[in-house]
Amino acid sequence: MSATNLILVRHGQSQWNLENRFTGWWDVDLTEKGEAEAKAAGELLAAKGMLPDVAFTSFQTRAIRTLHFALHAANRLWIPETKDWRLNERHYGGLTGLDKQETRDKHGDDQVHIWRRSFDTPPPAMEKGSTFDLSADPRYAGIDVPMAESLKDTIIRVLPYYEAEIEPVLASGKTVIVSAHGNSLRALVKHLSGISDDDITGLEIPTGQPIVYPFEGGKPSGERYYLSDA
Amino acid sequence: MSATNLILVRHGQSQWNLENRFTGWWDVDLTEKGEAEAKAAGELLAAKGMLPDVAFTSFQTRAIRTLHFALHAANRLWIPETKDWRLNERHYGGLTGLDKQETRDKHGDDQVHIWRRSFDTPPPAMEKGSTFDLSADPRYAGIDVPMAESLKDTIIRVLPYYEAEIEPVLASGKTVIVSAHGNSLRALVKHLSGISDDDITGLEIPTGQPIVYPFEGGKPSGERYYLSDA
Repeated sequence: MSATNLILVRHGQSQWNLENRFTGWWDVDLTEKGEAEAKAAGELLAAKGMLPDVAFTSFQTRAIRTLHFALHAANRLWIPETKDWRLNERHYGGLTGLDKQETRDKHGDDQVHIWRRSFDTPPPAMEKGSTFDLSADPRYAGIDVPMAESLKDTIIRVLPYYEAEIEPVLASGKTVIVSAHGNSLRALVKHLSGISDDDITGLEIPTGQPIVYPFEGGKPSGERYYLSDA
Repeated sequence: MSATNLILVRHGQSQWNLENRFTGWWDVDLTEKGEAEAKAAGELLAAKGMLPDVAFTSFQTRAIRTLHFALHAANRLWIPETKDWRLNERHYGGLTGLDKQETRDKHGDDQVHIWRRSFDTPPPAMEKGSTFDLSADPRYAGIDVPMAESLKDTIIRVLPYYEAEIEPVLASGKTVIVSAHGNSLRALVKHLSGISDDDITGLEIPTGQPIVYPFEGGKPSGERYYLSDA
């Protein structure tokens, strides 16, 4: 039962984080600031000697590039890397692409708060064939692309993936890094720290800040911490 | 028996390409010019619609980053990517790190020509524990790191890997990209184009220029060409 660590990193700032638009599965790239955040995350891993052996990320460019910048800065680009759509951001449905303030002006603060912060209420579904509909994207060939997801829906795809693919690697004593998104990481933190449905929706995960769980025998052996505080 | 393509890319200029030093397995990074070459390779893939489904690369940063720059430029960062030491550059043994001109001055042009261009004469072996000895590098844990390789030695590790891991993916009809090194790519080109032992050592593979083999049923169905000429 070897002791090891799970490192979680939320991607650095994306162009639509900057523009304050709902993003979800739309494949928005990092800004220069986001690239710098990712590089700094890797420098921190190296400085703290928290070196990953195996990497997991989503199908989305901003998380993949965050991983690559971080691994390059930590001189670990050579570790195995698996990408899976189940680590993608929550699908924001018909809100995808909309400006958050305009959406509040149109639908009211309360409604937008429910869409953003309810545990199990999904946003309005994306219309088939609309600009941001990814169901015909070759990246998602063979995958039943959702038309909207609540946080609960996101958890329902993230957790089985974690249990099947990531947990066994941790149980084998390897240090794992997961580069992903606000809501796919919420799904993991909810599970690993035992956070309630009500509390998880308010938990903010900052961009580019490595979060570490100590592990033993494939299960967390302590509470998570920011690597920058270690 | 689906028709598909194998794309070979030699990494862009590295710092030691620029400094004219023997590199081999030493993990030298790309120069800015090398990064630009890699990006241009990806732009060419996109412009020609030659889009890879699956990627293979070595354990060496310059090849991995060339792949990442190219896939990013072609909007294909999400494809699966496998790294393996058997796609590494030829191991240059005791010549690693030496300036090519200084080595010629010391050992003579003829000797250096033999080390560089003989098919089966390896360069002098690296000394155990010398600056460039990678046998204790965690990246190569569990791997019997060579102390020097001839081109023939390189072929002996590249080809079985190609046949076991890459050929079946091509046979399944997927377009494959291999981002690797002058000599690991020579090994593949020798095999796929049926080039003799004598001729292969003089074949120059330019950096950052995608080379394409049309494939059918897991075997080449035509001669290789530069994608820029297509």
